[in-house]
Amino acid sequence: MNYHELSTPALTVDLDILERNLDRMAALCRKHGLGLRPHIKTHKTPELARLQVERGAVGLTVAKVGEAEVMAGAGLDDLLVAFPIWGAENLRRLAALTRNHRIILSLDDRATAQELSRAMSAQGAHIGVLVEFDSGLRRCGLEPGAACVELAQQITRLPGLTFRGLMTYSGNIWGTEEERMGEAERVAERVQRALAAFEEARLPVEIVSGGSTPSAPLAGKIPRITEIRPGTYVYNDLNTFYQGVCQLEDCAARVVATVVSTAVLGRAMIDAGSKTLSSDALGSGPKSGHGYVVEAPDAKLIKLNEEHGHLDISNSAHRFQVGEVVTVIPNHVCTCVNMHDEVFLIRKEEVVGCWRVAARGKIR
Amino acid sequence: MNYHELSTPALTVDLDILERNLDRMAALCRKHGLGLRPHIKTHKTPELARLQVERGAVGLTVAKVGEAEVMAGAGLDDLLVAFPIWGAENLRRLAALTRNHRIILSLDDRATAQELSRAMSAQGAHIGVLVEFDSGLRRCGLEPGAACVELAQQITRLPGLTFRGLMTYSGNIWGTEEERMGEAERVAERVQRALAAFEEARLPVEIVSGGSTPSAPLAGKIPRITEIRPGTYVYNDLNTFYQGVCQLEDCAARVVATVVSTAVLGRAMIDAGSKTLSSDALGSGPKSGHGYVVEAPDAKLIKLNEEHGHLDISNSAHRFQVGEVVTVIPNHVCTCVNMHDEVFLIRKEEVVGCWRVAARGKIR
Repeated sequence: MNYHELSTPALTVDLDILERNLDRMAALCRKHGLGLRPHIKTHKTPELARLQVERGAVGLTVAKVGEAEVMAGAGLDDLLVAFPIWGAENLRRLAALTRNHRIILSLDDRATAQELSRAMSAQGAHIGVLVEFDSGLRRCGLEPGAACVELAQQITRLPGLTFRGLMTYSGNIWGTEEERMGEAERVAERVQRALAAFEEARLPVEIVSGGSTPSAPLAGKIPRITEIRPGTYVYNDLNTFYQGVCQLEDCAARVVATVVSTAVLGRAMIDAGSKTLSSDALGSGPKSGHGYVVEAPDAKLIKLNEEHGHLDISNSAHRFQVGEVVTVIPNHVCTCVNMHDEVFLIRKEEVVGCWRVAARGKIR
Repeated sequence: MNYHELSTPALTVDLDILERNLDRMAALCRKHGLGLRPHIKTHKTPELARLQVERGAVGLTVAKVGEAEVMAGAGLDDLLVAFPIWGAENLRRLAALTRNHRIILSLDDRATAQELSRAMSAQGAHIGVLVEFDSGLRRCGLEPGAACVELAQQITRLPGLTFRGLMTYSGNIWGTEEERMGEAERVAERVQRALAAFEEARLPVEIVSGGSTPSAPLAGKIPRITEIRPGTYVYNDLNTFYQGVCQLEDCAARVVATVVSTAVLGRAMIDAGSKTLSSDALGSGPKSGHGYVVEAPDAKLIKLNEEHGHLDISNSAHRFQVGEVVTVIPNHVCTCVNMHDEVFLIRKEEVVGCWRVAARGKIR
């Protein structure tokens, strides 16, 4: 079946593009001697995680216990839960997972470490811990320096926990190449400062986890990182494209939609709205619009309701017709994938399979 | 169990508030002699749809065939599919549903009617059709007047279809009460114009479907509507609140979240991001922010990542602590609910049950 015959709306993944993206990131990490521990938040799909491991990933990154359970349940191991998990039930599930799987968790607070230790001890379990420091995003993470060392020392004293190293998320490396270069310098300085404090305290740091898709090309500029956690690179999206980190031809995930109304002058409605594309705004490039219409880039996706995508076609040369199929590259592919129970696999326009997005919606 | 003990993040619904909201809208419709055909897009939950029917709803509105299947499968009947369904497989499923259920569909295009007729005929099935006209939103719908009559006449000639009436979505009735009053006048004029054309053509119009939550209080200003399709009123949200259509105490759906990091000065991170709240921007009131923190309204939810909600606490009197539970009223409850597989039911702070959001993610 050609992808034009899919029931719409539907999320598709071009396998040729995906495989090329996977190979490129694996090569980049080999070149820089970096461990690749991809974040599964983009695809949420064990089959794709396995392709990453087959290409040399040292493990996987997840954000929630539910995501870890899905990946572990599919036979994938060595998981970094890159989120400070809280709550008795969430921690009980996490501790249960460590019985048969290698799990590491990141955190930045003494109370979080204590709760984690309590939950691990209750099950006689054990977990590796990374101390998160802030490399400039101002989200999570301690100030690099003494505060990180103090937390690490506390962790070494708590039952059920082993201090394994440091983590930071440099989401501030974002924007034009020049902007990203500038931020990368600041991040490098903060990584250096964090490590200097541990050297002074003679506390060994095994793992230094960083990275993201937009910062991956700048890996050479940030020394002493041992592994990176890019997610978006598998599929790419408009945010990646507008930062110059990929070409449109590298966008593997596209929403197939149908034009369902042309009744209003200057408008065409497609059957893909925010329930299909997600309402994430464009954070890079023109910072407006809700997706790129491959067949008619001069038509602007100006607004989304849940089920309607509003195309402004007043400046488009394309003649939109009700029933016509179009493909849309989303602004932010991670949140788009999270709207879908399955993705349809395409090779040379033919639908060759389907993956269930098994870790979709695992908010806990 | 008190709702503070829920694993977070979690979506909760206060049943006392919900029941009050249901009663109010039912009373409003009785007062104006309007049929109430609530849109299930807000709750996507058969149990709640049943409460609406028990309070006198004449039927339900859905957007997609998958939503109709879920509601019909739960024993709910008389469904308006308020979306121009396209595609062979989607139409085949729709036709199959009409065998044991009363279904109506809205559309605005000759080709859509022809495809629908073909699909119905193939199964010897029959469906009622509403012609959609545009009352000023510029989304779907023909210009009120001759074009609507022509499409209705075509529908009467097509096998498997019965012309039942007209539909419009007045999403343009939005904003302050003054703005909404002004738009309501324009909508009323366009409804009148649509009906005048049918009177001139001596074509009877049984149903005139309109309405929404923000326009419901103005029902008296738009004569000749026979039934309305509000959705949001069951739960309400910040968009409804800032339009003055409800009070904060009428917001039944709230996200329970935990503070997971306070490591960065002036910031507190909660474990509810766009995967939990949805990234829909506020379309009313201050038009900024991602939700209202009940325990500390002076803390601003300034940014969402998938799993992180960024609270700017620099101007808050509240002392945020890691592990603390907070509740958040979402900007847009429909898209928020769509992120959740279940909602937890609360009465006087106690968790008394759980509903599966059975029609979540039914994009087709």
